[in-house]
Amino acid sequence: MARILSLTLNPALDLTVRLRSLELGAVNRSEAVLAQAAGKGLNVAQVLADLGHELSVGGFLGADNAEAFEALFRRRGFRDAFVRVPGETRSNIKLAERSGRITDLNGPGLEVDAAARQRLLDGLDELAAGQDLVVVAGSLPRGVEPQWLRELLLRLKRLGLRVALDSSGEALRQGLAAGPWLVKPNVEELAEACGPAGEGGLDAQARALRAGGIEHLVLSEGAEGVRWYGPEGLWQATPPKVEVASTVGAGDSLLAAMVDGLLAGRPAGQVLRQATAVAALAVTQFDFGIADRERLARLQAQVAVRALD
Amino acid sequence: MARILSLTLNPALDLTVRLRSLELGAVNRSEAVLAQAAGKGLNVAQVLADLGHELSVGGFLGADNAEAFEALFRRRGFRDAFVRVPGETRSNIKLAERSGRITDLNGPGLEVDAAARQRLLDGLDELAAGQDLVVVAGSLPRGVEPQWLRELLLRLKRLGLRVALDSSGEALRQGLAAGPWLVKPNVEELAEACGPAGEGGLDAQARALRAGGIEHLVLSEGAEGVRWYGPEGLWQATPPKVEVASTVGAGDSLLAAMVDGLLAGRPAGQVLRQATAVAALAVTQFDFGIADRERLARLQAQVAVRALD
Repeated sequence: MARILSLTLNPALDLTVRLRSLELGAVNRSEAVLAQAAGKGLNVAQVLADLGHELSVGGFLGADNAEAFEALFRRRGFRDAFVRVPGETRSNIKLAERSGRITDLNGPGLEVDAAARQRLLDGLDELAAGQDLVVVAGSLPRGVEPQWLRELLLRLKRLGLRVALDSSGEALRQGLAAGPWLVKPNVEELAEACGPAGEGGLDAQARALRAGGIEHLVLSEGAEGVRWYGPEGLWQATPPKVEVASTVGAGDSLLAAMVDGLLAGRPAGQVLRQATAVAALAVTQFDFGIADRERLARLQAQVAVRALD
Repeated sequence: MARILSLTLNPALDLTVRLRSLELGAVNRSEAVLAQAAGKGLNVAQVLADLGHELSVGGFLGADNAEAFEALFRRRGFRDAFVRVPGETRSNIKLAERSGRITDLNGPGLEVDAAARQRLLDGLDELAAGQDLVVVAGSLPRGVEPQWLRELLLRLKRLGLRVALDSSGEALRQGLAAGPWLVKPNVEELAEACGPAGEGGLDAQARALRAGGIEHLVLSEGAEGVRWYGPEGLWQATPPKVEVASTVGAGDSLLAAMVDGLLAGRPAGQVLRQATAVAALAVTQFDFGIADRERLARLQAQVAVRALD
């Protein structure tokens, strides 16, 4: 069991509204409304907790609707290190009709000011003490620039922490520049962050990042599997075909299980096999997480893993 | 200043989502999401607080999303006597597009069980002590039958409290049978609760309810005004024509201001004039309440009031 800090700079309150059908301009009755504390770093934290680790969670949280988050922290035994910011954490509303049609209404979210950013930095020294690793995952709220993320990662490294990063766009580009210990982009995210690929394509870019000091580059390719550029060369895993319930949390599950295997020092093939299976398990669920260990074991046995270098 | 208890048996968390335009089946970005603790009894309580009274508020509240409600109670200095029930208070989502089109998504709400109902009844003795009046307003949650509402009103009366009721449908019908001190239906609600009108129509029905022991029957007729059947006969008020921003809270404002005037023992014409103006003021605002005393005074001067008996 490791002690892990997971930072979510831009969490979201997910509201899923189920209804028979939606008529615009009318009064509709919803069948159920489900509020869930969400955000990539919190998803990763939950899967890491399922894998037996001790979690602290931090980032920026709106003071006016922190309740669902605080309930999650209590339920999962997370240490709450979130900096409270005036206002409300963004709400992402998902309207799910019986037909399967999904309409998303994504909110604007918090504005994080200099004082709040400083409070997060000030808290890090104490927070970092005794942690084995820090995960930084998700997008950036208004007021947090990609350059600030790079500074944050550099500061975490100076505190002696291994940093696992999952972000996209300019935030990923700046994050890569800080040289995190592990990054987990998907193919599109890596291509966008690295710019036009020269000869050798994405593979050459991935190897260049490794050479630049990133220990583990975990490249998710969706249903096709995972390519992992690490100290033991390039490994590739293909998950079994599964029935897709929801891809929510699949990437977060992959990241969490990679971290778990690497911290435990397991052999490379075993690390990648487990991580690929945990992600595949997430895909078979509307939610994510490891509720069914036997199902995970069956999926794990069906993952094809090979060393490519 | 009076001490008033306002009961909201079925409060709601109103979520207003503003967006440029809504495309079904797509990812939309909302411009703002506003969460507001709502429910008729809480609306009435806020207007009564604006009028200078000391409020206690009660009813049933979901334990999992009480935050916005508790923040309102703190902000307004309300004594919180809500019984907490497992689960979430219903969410009513309002999607407001720039075109003016409004789409409502009204949630299913709490299931209130026998234990929660009993906790509310058990708390009444202590709650009722020292109150001058109790308001019971709004619909009933699942698990609360109209017959139970009647029993509640009878119990409140036995505790020596004047009861002001605002509900509709079968709940209003059962509530009327308990003989509250004041009721405030609109024309449609009274017609529905009383059944087919015989000779004399709604007027005869209103007078029959008065004869049956209801001291004040305040009948709202929307933009046409208010008819009040009371101890001083039938009074009628016509508000000035105003530009309508939103009718949200107008009926609750009428009820609150009637209660205020009656408790203060003001002359009938003055009571009705103020109440009609407070309701008209609410109509001119997106929200409701008495933020602008001068505007209220101007509206009050423009209300036409006459005794019809």
